[in-house]
Amino acid sequence: MSKIEIVPLGGIGEFGMNCMGIRYDDEMIIVDAGMGFPEETPYGVDISIPNFDFLEEYRDDITAIILTHGHEDHIGALPYILRKFNVPVYASRFTLGLADRKLEEFGMLDDVLLHRVKAGDRIEVGVFGIEFIHASHSLVECFSLAVHTPAGTLVHTGDYKIDDTPVIGRPYDLEMLGRVGDEGVLALLCDSTNATVPGRTPSEQAVIPAFEEIFQESDGRLFVSTFSSSIHRLQIIFDIAHKFGRRVCVLGRSMQRNVEIASDMGLLRVVGDTMIELGASRALADDEICYLVTGSQGEMRAALWNLATTTYKGLEIENGDTVVLSARIIPGNEKNISRLIGHLYKRGANIIEEKRRLVHVSGHASLEDIRIMVETSRPRYVVPIHGEYRMLFRQKEFIKNHVAGYDDDDIVLIENGEILELDEYGARVVEKHELHKTFIDEESLEEIEYDVIRERKKLAYGGMISLVVTVDRARHTLVGEPQVTLSGVAGLDVTNGFAADARRAVANAVGEMRPEQVADRTVFKENLRLHLKRFVQREIAGKPVIVTTVVEV
Amino acid sequence: MSKIEIVPLGGIGEFGMNCMGIRYDDEMIIVDAGMGFPEETPYGVDISIPNFDFLEEYRDDITAIILTHGHEDHIGALPYILRKFNVPVYASRFTLGLADRKLEEFGMLDDVLLHRVKAGDRIEVGVFGIEFIHASHSLVECFSLAVHTPAGTLVHTGDYKIDDTPVIGRPYDLEMLGRVGDEGVLALLCDSTNATVPGRTPSEQAVIPAFEEIFQESDGRLFVSTFSSSIHRLQIIFDIAHKFGRRVCVLGRSMQRNVEIASDMGLLRVVGDTMIELGASRALADDEICYLVTGSQGEMRAALWNLATTTYKGLEIENGDTVVLSARIIPGNEKNISRLIGHLYKRGANIIEEKRRLVHVSGHASLEDIRIMVETSRPRYVVPIHGEYRMLFRQKEFIKNHVAGYDDDDIVLIENGEILELDEYGARVVEKHELHKTFIDEESLEEIEYDVIRERKKLAYGGMISLVVTVDRARHTLVGEPQVTLSGVAGLDVTNGFAADARRAVANAVGEMRPEQVADRTVFKENLRLHLKRFVQREIAGKPVIVTTVVEV
Repeated sequence: MSKIEIVPLGGIGEFGMNCMGIRYDDEMIIVDAGMGFPEETPYGVDISIPNFDFLEEYRDDITAIILTHGHEDHIGALPYILRKFNVPVYASRFTLGLADRKLEEFGMLDDVLLHRVKAGDRIEVGVFGIEFIHASHSLVECFSLAVHTPAGTLVHTGDYKIDDTPVIGRPYDLEMLGRVGDEGVLALLCDSTNATVPGRTPSEQAVIPAFEEIFQESDGRLFVSTFSSSIHRLQIIFDIAHKFGRRVCVLGRSMQRNVEIASDMGLLRVVGDTMIELGASRALADDEICYLVTGSQGEMRAALWNLATTTYKGLEIENGDTVVLSARIIPGNEKNISRLIGHLYKRGANIIEEKRRLVHVSGHASLEDIRIMVETSRPRYVVPIHGEYRMLFRQKEFIKNHVAGYDDDDIVLIENGEILELDEYGARVVEKHELHKTFIDEESLEEIEYDVIRERKKLAYGGMISLVVTVDRARHTLVGEPQVTLSGVAGLDVTNGFAADARRAVANAVGEMRPEQVADRTVFKENLRLHLKRFVQREIAGKPVIVTTVVEV
Repeated sequence: MSKIEIVPLGGIGEFGMNCMGIRYDDEMIIVDAGMGFPEETPYGVDISIPNFDFLEEYRDDITAIILTHGHEDHIGALPYILRKFNVPVYASRFTLGLADRKLEEFGMLDDVLLHRVKAGDRIEVGVFGIEFIHASHSLVECFSLAVHTPAGTLVHTGDYKIDDTPVIGRPYDLEMLGRVGDEGVLALLCDSTNATVPGRTPSEQAVIPAFEEIFQESDGRLFVSTFSSSIHRLQIIFDIAHKFGRRVCVLGRSMQRNVEIASDMGLLRVVGDTMIELGASRALADDEICYLVTGSQGEMRAALWNLATTTYKGLEIENGDTVVLSARIIPGNEKNISRLIGHLYKRGANIIEEKRRLVHVSGHASLEDIRIMVETSRPRYVVPIHGEYRMLFRQKEFIKNHVAGYDDDDIVLIENGEILELDEYGARVVEKHELHKTFIDEESLEEIEYDVIRERKKLAYGGMISLVVTVDRARHTLVGEPQVTLSGVAGLDVTNGFAADARRAVANAVGEMRPEQVADRTVFKENLRLHLKRFVQREIAGKPVIVTTVVEV
């Protein structure tokens, strides 16, 4: 049975929530365990994770979790998967630094086995030999993986771009990738996030000129908002601030945490006394301070939103301040960002956005980076990963049309839940599962059943009616009047007596039932619900949820 | 009291839902009555309208509704405002054509007074003299307005761009605007939709070359999706289809309706037998047909979505088809459009998007169009309208910095609910009201109370618990056990006996009450709710709505 099985749990056909099983015989490793940001926020959830229950059938096979890098869409679901499958985790020092904090919050740090690996290492996990290839991306200590099996070698790119001049650390290790390629690669699992973008992705250094200009020309206070994990970007801002005589004050919990971790590890180098606390920062002149803040996506709980709406304790954006939004707009956040910008303008701030000046570069491979990846690893097959279907598709189109030696059959499009078998004879989808994502309750951080969300959707859409009917236990007849309570029901004029009419309708319906119809309470309850539903449909256009209670006396 | 009051009900500080009152002394005209597309879709609403209740205090003053053009964000709320204030409506023939259909659906056509006006006309409505200036935009028969009052003249641009070579009709009537300007303009109320875009907006003709190329190079079937109101665009597609020997089949209700209205009026000219029905179209060769379809925004009920997901009766997108998305992405629709494109790729279609080829131009003024508008009308004040705050702000910045003669004080930023007084002495906000938008129930098309939406939001966020308690009418003691029903409640293990524990907790609480505490049913009910709420807070992290019913026996 010499074949590899790819089991995609997340991130293929969607943005975020990256997670994939790679199986050979009866052993399986998991690459990444990321979280997603679902649209179901009205229903009390702001995070989703892959449906790990699907892995139950492989429970005895799972031997390790490998993390390519520390972004939330790659490690955010780690506590949840480890609760179910407590296997060893392999990751870089920096990735483990971020994962540690997360596991600590969940009180799990003492119960899990974390292995530190570094670029260039090779480990053996059962039948798998795994090599860690240094990858360049928007944060540090990232890996592409070479996964060796008896059926052939897979290269999993993780998130990457081919950055020849990163700010921190070495360029992408094309030499090591080339060596793996020389030894033969069965399939390349390749990041598609930017597969709609032609050309090369600029180096992390590309934003330096714009930032130097901004620091040069600003007399007022500077607020720079970026992703807190973008360590290269943070380094640039610290360096330029120092050069232009500004101290840096870091605001926002995740930004403070990441700066601390990266500094402690010597990855982020902060010169002398550049860093300053909020209290002390207020004593500085306007042109002596730069605030580095979270909230570039318009998140309503982040520092920048609060600064813009005067709800941040001890500091607010004022006339003459300059705010740099050094980040791309993640799809779905357009409206919140537009609102944030409106608030900032109202405060009198000058706003610098990436579409007007080069204050942001992507961390993901554009099409010419993808070409380099494919031509260096020279895989038999390419499987686009990380992206919505249209991005996977565009990667396929590009490779097929613009990289020599690749035909339609060589680039295999799969989505979450489609199990792909790979061997010397070919690549084929052998099973197809519909995987509902798992939601995380915003209040408890616990998993929430999909059925609960479905019920909440119904309640949201039409409101609900509670119907209480009292019956005589012995005679199976109605006692008193039915009671009706409404919540969130539309289409009623409160004065039009809808509740009274509904009570009468239910009472009449019960009056026409034979005692044996009332005697079976389950059937009776369902009949009540149907009667009320029909009445509601006649009277109003909405579709409220009907909750029926029968009281026996 | 020689002053003008601007009463902005919608469209200022938000996208869509345009509506404004202009008042002089005790007379008021309403300019436009548009609908908006709110984010509250999970709560059973997909349309919002301005809060017309706010106009109650002006009830006796309102004398007319003037419609600048026929887009839904300018006429969509017409039936709702006319129900409350049945005053005469003035609009162009084409705008009335669209309004007619809408009023017919509401069964109101016989009860309202519609006046047809044409570009160049001047009407007198009480104290107001209103001139209709021919404006170019993405649809036809649009107006800018010159509103003359004893306190001065306002120019309301409506939606516009300065198109020197429109496909249908004349260019923007700058001559008339200039004449109005010569006579003196107190304030210009100016469209800001594209105030973040530098340069001139291209003419409607600018898409012709790209479409000619697409028709030239396509062998397969063509599907062109655009806004059904973009009559210039439709004309171009009909013309080029005819030129390249393709028949045109129109799919989607609003597209069919608009084509019919525009053709009947002779605005849209369809050569000979170009138009064809769906049934007949299937007999044609692939390179003989062009489908003109609704759904460019990824709307899940529109023709294109159904064609892409094989749910359109009698037709589906197939391998080799070319789909042209000839529209911009309206903010908020990014995710749905991305999904649509994914489905289309899966069907094997070739997709042409506006960001890759010039198959769409905006209908709104870019900054250099705004310059022409200001320099031609030469108003004393400019009031940016139509746009989110950041667009209003950017219009102000542009005029202040790049149009001679305008300082900070001359460009006045207001938002919905801020009443602006204008006279020879200045422009000042005199009142500020918070205007909740009014939602329209998706099922009944009736207005829905804001409180209902608030209740639905709570139900959505935490689910609900129904608690039923039976008490002895005379002795004020508990009869039997309380009953608890859950819907959409999270954080429970179904097997953990939450409901049983809740029943016990409520029973205990009632047991400890004195009879007089039970006797007052209102107080008793609220106490029950609080007891259960505290129990719930201890047991789970969620915040369900608690609905309490007391049964007396």
